[in-house]
Amino acid sequence: MIAVDWGGTSLRAYRLAADGLVLERRRSNEGALACHGRFGKVLGALLADWDDPLVVMAGMVGARGGWIEVPYVRCPADAAALAAGMLHLDASLEAPGLARRTLWCVPGVADHGPLVGDVMRGEETQVAGLLDTLGPGTHTLCLPGTHSKWVRVREGAIVHVSTAMTGELYSVLRLHSILGRSMPEGEPPMDLAAFDAGLECSRDPASGLLHDLFGVRTASLFGHFAQAALPSYLSGLLIGHELQAALAGLPAPVHLVGSEALVERYARALQARGIEVQRHSEELAAAGMHRLARTRGLA
Amino acid sequence: MIAVDWGGTSLRAYRLAADGLVLERRRSNEGALACHGRFGKVLGALLADWDDPLVVMAGMVGARGGWIEVPYVRCPADAAALAAGMLHLDASLEAPGLARRTLWCVPGVADHGPLVGDVMRGEETQVAGLLDTLGPGTHTLCLPGTHSKWVRVREGAIVHVSTAMTGELYSVLRLHSILGRSMPEGEPPMDLAAFDAGLECSRDPASGLLHDLFGVRTASLFGHFAQAALPSYLSGLLIGHELQAALAGLPAPVHLVGSEALVERYARALQARGIEVQRHSEELAAAGMHRLARTRGLA
Repeated sequence: MIAVDWGGTSLRAYRLAADGLVLERRRSNEGALACHGRFGKVLGALLADWDDPLVVMAGMVGARGGWIEVPYVRCPADAAALAAGMLHLDASLEAPGLARRTLWCVPGVADHGPLVGDVMRGEETQVAGLLDTLGPGTHTLCLPGTHSKWVRVREGAIVHVSTAMTGELYSVLRLHSILGRSMPEGEPPMDLAAFDAGLECSRDPASGLLHDLFGVRTASLFGHFAQAALPSYLSGLLIGHELQAALAGLPAPVHLVGSEALVERYARALQARGIEVQRHSEELAAAGMHRLARTRGLA
Repeated sequence: MIAVDWGGTSLRAYRLAADGLVLERRRSNEGALACHGRFGKVLGALLADWDDPLVVMAGMVGARGGWIEVPYVRCPADAAALAAGMLHLDASLEAPGLARRTLWCVPGVADHGPLVGDVMRGEETQVAGLLDTLGPGTHTLCLPGTHSKWVRVREGAIVHVSTAMTGELYSVLRLHSILGRSMPEGEPPMDLAAFDAGLECSRDPASGLLHDLFGVRTASLFGHFAQAALPSYLSGLLIGHELQAALAGLPAPVHLVGSEALVERYARALQARGIEVQRHSEELAAAGMHRLARTRGLA
């Protein structure tokens, strides 16, 4: 089968062996937000010479405004519930590369909390890819990114989802706020001392994030850090505040799933608090889609 | 004398009577960031037919990159210290409207805290305008804005400054983040129920701002609020988080200084926590510059 991780800003396709192992990878920048509704054409072209008939997709492609809206499955959501929520999509006429293929899309997960609740879409496949490894009991997963997802799994089911806008805030503050004006363009190499100082600052119980952010400007005014170190300081502050709120009451270790660079930052931040971590590749998404396809009886 | 409040994005001039009362007001959009270094020309034109010789300025006009860099005065800073830090500026040749005038600029205040410290520039004149009213003891001032300033005054001196980037974060999130995409353009009328819900959400000790922000998106997805109410919800969340951190250990009442609309929001948020407020107009800046000019022996 082919597993397709189609988020807002990126598109990744994996060709899988019968046991779920990744045989080949392809990626494109035509994310669900960037492809202007040309979903069939973009996917058909990307998969062209892969002749596997079954295609399972996940991510923003299945959101409102995406290719097909797949309703959220509510917590607690185990593999059976996720698989049951998958929707079939008839796209054989949309592009030559899609004829003779069967397309399915995985649902997101909604956690209707006491106040506003929370959701995820796409990350549930990475969680599904870990379920068999985790085993019984309660587990904490962190999937850092533009919107970091904190997921609690109990007895094989997703029981809680909490999102932190850490990555997006980092990006809008760098590009559009006064803080970015003191920073060099592009992404300078990580400055570990500045990152650690940001983490440390976020642990002061008397300070809030809105105040600490202005400290990036003051640090620059007073020359505490070189300009090239300021993005690392900001990153440490934001990740530190994310952890401060997310860790309350969660059992260790924290399973980190994501890109190598982000997982490295989060692992450093968690270890600075004495919390054990286990790292996993973001390709778990492919394993998760394979797992759900099997549960649904498709693969 | 003439008092000039020249911030990054706006320029306000006040013509004062000998006792400091405001006789006339003028404003312009040519803030210190927007006037492209044409400080003398812009000011000369704005003041043209006001023939008062003494001009006292405050705000970003006195920052690095402004018209003249006036070094920060360190905490504790009383009226005598602020007046002693004022710098004279010879601009008689820069524009016809400035000939025969004497120009002075007020310093900002720096609070070198244990970690990165904090600063303000411009708001110290509003504080100076309140000093005589406050009297002895310890007082809490909040000056909401793009960068909200929380100021502690003890025995007539500014002893602590803490900035929260609340207003700027509201603006960048509305204009440049995923949260803004669900909101109408422009600024819809305040929705009090949504604002109060944001305040309430920020008081949950288990939740962090980075998570609560994503709740604006979830609230929109789940239809908890109309789109036109989302800016008010976001505003309540941000102001609530600002208060949560800023209020720790500060004595009531809180003296609020700022525009009527902002002071109204902060007063509502403080009163929801049972904290007494006293409201003051942002024109305190003019009274403060008059006070400092007298202390310096200029007026």
